Amino acid sequence: MASSSAVYAGAPLALAQNQSVVAIGAHSDDIELGCGGTLAKACQAGLQVTCLLLTHSAYHQIDGKDRTAELAESEGLEAAATLGIHDVRCLGFATTELRWEFALVEAIDAVLREVKPSLIFTHWPFDTHQDHHFGAMATLSAARLFPTVLTYEPIFPSGRSFQPFRPQLYFDIGETIEAKLESLRCHRSQHAKYGDDWLEAVKARARIRGYDTGVTYAEAFEVVRMRVTL
Amino acid sequence: MASSSAVYAGAPLALAQNQSVVAIGAHSDDIELGCGGTLAKACQAGLQVTCLLLTHSAYHQIDGKDRTAELAESEGLEAAATLGIHDVRCLGFATTELRWEFALVEAIDAVLREVKPSLIFTHWPFDTHQDHHFGAMATLSAARLFPTVLTYEPIFPSGRSFQPFRPQLYFDIGETIEAKLESLRCHRSQHAKYGDDWLEAVKARARIRGYDTGVTYAEAFEVVRMRVTL
Amino acid sequence: MASSSAVYAGAPLALAQNQSVVAIGAHSDDIELGCGGTLAKACQAGLQVTCLLLTHSAYHQIDGKDRTAELAESEGLEAAATLGIHDVRCLGFATTELRWEFALVEAIDAVLREVKPSLIFTHWPFDTHQDHHFGAMATLSAARLFPTVLTYEPIFPSGRSFQPFRPQLYFDIGETIEAKLESLRCHRSQHAKYGDDWLEAVKARARIRGYDTGVTYAEAFEVVRMRVTL
Amino acid sequence: MASSSAVYAGAPLALAQNQSVVAIGAHSDDIELGCGGTLAKACQAGLQVTCLLLTHSAYHQIDGKDRTAELAESEGLEAAATLGIHDVRCLGFATTELRWEFALVEAIDAVLREVKPSLIFTHWPFDTHQDHHFGAMATLSAARLFPTVLTYEPIFPSGRSFQPFRPQLYFDIGETIEAKLESLRCHRSQHAKYGDDWLEAVKARARIRGYDTGVTYAEAFEVVRMRVTL
Amino acid sequence: MASSSAVYAGAPLALAQNQSVVAIGAHSDDIELGCGGTLAKACQAGLQVTCLLLTHSAYHQIDGKDRTAELAESEGLEAAATLGIHDVRCLGFATTELRWEFALVEAIDAVLREVKPSLIFTHWPFDTHQDHHFGAMATLSAARLFPTVLTYEPIFPSGRSFQPFRPQLYFDIGETIEAKLESLRCHRSQHAKYGDDWLEAVKARARIRGYDTGVTYAEAFEVVRMRVTL
Amino acid sequence: MASSSAVYAGAPLALAQNQSVVAIGAHSDDIELGCGGTLAKACQAGLQVTCLLLTHSAYHQIDGKDRTAELAESEGLEAAATLGIHDVRCLGFATTELRWEFALVEAIDAVLREVKPSLIFTHWPFDTHQDHHFGAMATLSAARLFPTVLTYEPIFPSGRSFQPFRPQLYFDIGETIEAKLESLRCHRSQHAKYGDDWLEAVKARARIRGYDTGVTYAEAFEVVRMRVTL
Repeated sequence: MASSSAVYAGAPLALAQNQSVVAIGAHSDDIELGCGGTLAKACQAGLQVTCLLLTHSAYHQIDGKDRTAELAESEGLEAAATLGIHDVRCLGFATTELRWEFALVEAIDAVLREVKPSLIFTHWPFDTHQDHHFGAMATLSAARLFPTVLTYEPIFPSGRSFQPFRPQLYFDIGETIEAKLESLRCHRSQHAKYGDDWLEAVKARARIRGYDTGVTYAEAFEVVRMRVTL
Repeated sequence: MASSSAVYAGAPLALAQNQSVVAIGAHSDDIELGCGGTLAKACQAGLQVTCLLLTHSAYHQIDGKDRTAELAESEGLEAAATLGIHDVRCLGFATTELRWEFALVEAIDAVLREVKPSLIFTHWPFDTHQDHHFGAMATLSAARLFPTVLTYEPIFPSGRSFQPFRPQLYFDIGETIEAKLESLRCHRSQHAKYGDDWLEAVKARARIRGYDTGVTYAEAFEVVRMRVTL
Repeated sequence: MASSSAVYAGAPLALAQNQSVVAIGAHSDDIELGCGGTLAKACQAGLQVTCLLLTHSAYHQIDGKDRTAELAESEGLEAAATLGIHDVRCLGFATTELRWEFALVEAIDAVLREVKPSLIFTHWPFDTHQDHHFGAMATLSAARLFPTVLTYEPIFPSGRSFQPFRPQLYFDIGETIEAKLESLRCHRSQHAKYGDDWLEAVKARARIRGYDTGVTYAEAFEVVRMRVTL
Repeated sequence: MASSSAVYAGAPLALAQNQSVVAIGAHSDDIELGCGGTLAKACQAGLQVTCLLLTHSAYHQIDGKDRTAELAESEGLEAAATLGIHDVRCLGFATTELRWEFALVEAIDAVLREVKPSLIFTHWPFDTHQDHHFGAMATLSAARLFPTVLTYEPIFPSGRSFQPFRPQLYFDIGETIEAKLESLRCHRSQHAKYGDDWLEAVKARARIRGYDTGVTYAEAFEVVRMRVTL
Repeated sequence: MASSSAVYAGAPLALAQNQSVVAIGAHSDDIELGCGGTLAKACQAGLQVTCLLLTHSAYHQIDGKDRTAELAESEGLEAAATLGIHDVRCLGFATTELRWEFALVEAIDAVLREVKPSLIFTHWPFDTHQDHHFGAMATLSAARLFPTVLTYEPIFPSGRSFQPFRPQLYFDIGETIEAKLESLRCHRSQHAKYGDDWLEAVKARARIRGYDTGVTYAEAFEVVRMRVTL
Repeated sequence: MASSSAVYAGAPLALAQNQSVVAIGAHSDDIELGCGGTLAKACQAGLQVTCLLLTHSAYHQIDGKDRTAELAESEGLEAAATLGIHDVRCLGFATTELRWEFALVEAIDAVLREVKPSLIFTHWPFDTHQDHHFGAMATLSAARLFPTVLTYEPIFPSGRSFQPFRPQLYFDIGETIEAKLESLRCHRSQHAKYGDDWLEAVKARARIRGYDTGVTYAEAFEVVRMRVTL
């Protein structure tokens, strides 16, 4: 499928290799939804990728559908592997009970100091799920000494904010959209809960973000800050 | 396809009938792109719909592909008819040369005073095509005495703003998405220029906006102001 | 009194009947201040209206003036009845101690699932009273599956934000402004505390918001999101 | 009428005397609407006040009601005198045709260099009347070397922006609200056009802005920048 | 050094004397960083200045460098004295554990009611250190009855926000920049931790903010609200 | 000078070589002020850099100091050469008279189509010099098919906006700060006009932006959009 901008648009900026990345999410599947395609591409490009889950991701839902911590972990590891990621860590805070507090900041800080990432992905601060918001804020506190932080786009139901998301930085995920969708299917408990609509919506969003930037599929990010070397 | 929110979400607000609508766009096809599905639904619901084009929509493109005013008009009338709209007016200003000036404001004003719409659709003011921006601003000036103005979401290439669009008000266009796409195909000169990518992107955007609000396809608007009667 | 916009402005949008509304406020009197006129109009129009107070609304003030939970409840019920509202619920959290936490989100969620409102009113998220802010955020979390959420305008002393409120959606309250003021007088403890200034300010704000939209008195709302059916 | 904040709020900041002020407006009556009460107070305090009108303020209205330049001037001079202002200047640009262009910037610049004001008032940049917007922008260009610029709050119909005004700086106009209203009555052509609603709305807005800051009547401004000496 | 704007810029606004000021900061040294030069100038001008620290400012750092509460206090008192400030108070909340909660709001409120400041300085709400953010929010809650609140500009590492700071009000600190730098040197534990870079950055920021407003050195503030008397 | 963040911050993102850059400015010296250090670094890294001036940059100043087009050109070429740039183009529009119009958009478009840049730098849209604003908007229109657009930070007097600039992307210019300052000295007419203050302010800003991102000197940009390839 030829892009409409193929005629004379310039080339994208290319990042050098030998970088490490930490992607942070409150719950199992948040990272895949927000930046799974980009992480899969990063793995292919030889970057070191670490996923950091803030909660154990177990929940007891009103309608009786539960996800145990064990299930969340096994689904999450399988999903990560689908993207090529083998370093998945979990801070084990209680689902739905995150707070923007020192204990969380310090725990994130310890991982960042160990991995020394060039690139940190986290939730968008205006996400209206309290865990997503507090996880984003704690990441911003912990990441204060790191040069590059990008926030991924929320998706319904989390993404129903009272503020507008500003898509600024796009990664082409044309080669990894299928891996992204497959990683979401690995979250069988969530797939069962949300149905195929969920995957369709994720794909539609990647399509429109791709079209925005002249490729077929993309993930979009709002930039907290970046330091770039020429 | 069952919506993920089918379980317990409330019903949408329903608008009363006997309302009139004016949709304003700088060029032929802008209105279809921005709110074509909503207008088709409005026609089905018995509302009176008027489309107001600000320019004659002819252009001479760098790569030699032209659109004459006659072609723009014939394609536009066919597209509008596909949506069920038969009142299409054109102010005939020169394409690419719109300015936020009294002549334009007054010309829009005259149409609004005649139609007395309950609902006005226009471009989003931060669109980066100069005609779209100035058309939006002139509409805001002209519409100062009207209670309800909604701005439609820009789409690439116009929609590459330096500001974030804030989707707030959604119309369900599940029944009219095909009419919307068909109306865009009526713009054969544009379809030839942008390819099937263009339609795919429009559909993907409608899908993600629909998912955001719990339906299959939707169009989203940022609210300038609305007056509602209970 | 003739409106200045009577000459040629279009009619307001009219909502269909048979809708249910949930209005959420942190304390007794917040709802009346924010959307009391609109709720009275909604009752007249036959909509089902539920008020949900998040705290027991008792406080011990520095200057020795207290409001007991019993007083807050009796004043609140009388105020609601003045507006035509008979379904008033209270979650009973401690005044001044609200947090954006799962316990609060879940408690709101339970009411929303029962009532299935088409329309939810809540505090504006940038209000600088901590209970108002956290109550707004918890509502946004709880309401994630509901199509329409509007935030009401804060009024001094709560409304001294560091951010600007954006009035977007107006309900005409010309027929219910007196009921709104009467409902505030029912909060005798607050009326005694703030004096007639308080009522004057509420009326002045309704007048200026009315003038903004071409009627005599109105209440204004910033739109989180709305789904509308034509 | 006792202010609700009389109990323990601190005193307002007080400005030193011997300052000069330039108030800029696109049309006759804009300055009175935006900051008339503050200017009357400034005159009483012995500050030198200059009003600068950008257009001759004549217009030919659709409904046949005209205002000639002569009428605008005579009404404007009388209105200014009511506030205690005797230095009123007019750049004479054509009404409705202002542009953000060098000719306008330079003409404003010449007045500013002569008067050397400590304080400049102008329109709010997001006002949706094109003359107000372009006048504001030209003022911002011309005032680049001046330390203090405040923008006054728009009022309907000009004030129907797509952006929220942020009230930040308040001047108490309790002693001059009547002079402000009287100055508006001097604009007999406008009073006839808008009716008593217009004055009522102006007074209601002053009342609510006063209540916001703990006094009876106030005018509110969004701050472009201020330099203050302790 | 002659300012580039010396040629024809107007004079700054001058504040009257006999005002009292409360500057609030989460930790020892925050106030000096944010508004130390302005406070030194205020002392010289005869205003009464109170510094209010929210935490005891002790911390245990990951790299083993600690600051005890005693050290924080002694360094802080010396720093304040350098600026001419002798009223320094500490609420003693635990460092890194501030929350936007009633206990904090009430404790700030008690100080404000005693001092009755004309001018309150606090952190900028979008600062990404959790103590700075929650301290700002608690100040905004506590200060609801006070007419003037200014927020000071964050500086790295605290100032790495996801939102843009809006410099609006400038105080000339040309006469007190050295006192400000000296007060920071009094925080020997912090100077040792951050090095001379820290002082250089503070001075560079004062230089660019000064240049912005036509003087040599300045501190800049975003305005929450001000009430000014002419 | 050791950076305070040297201890454990990750590496910056590194861009690949073989990219081309177009930097756009309204007047001679705007580009050097906004991104001169970054462009010098880009030249050193082997990227192809084109500077595009929109106006002939001649002006006749109120105080009698003029800059002819010839002088602007000769100073500009020397300044560019100091940075290592040898491709400097000028569209020759009249200084102070830029408009956001098709003629300007098309002229920029022609250069972009020829050079096909990976990276475009332009003014920040909220700059209050009319040429800077309209130049920014015309660039955004012309660049609609290009993947990466960054806006540089305005500096006084242009940078006195009514909106806050959001520094997001930082380029380390520690190796090129002297070349940047030297390039500004080449603009002898401007150096004479603004004095050494001008250079001091530029250096101070580079220092504080460097400190923000953990290096000694940096230039900061607000991101319109970027496409990045891993």
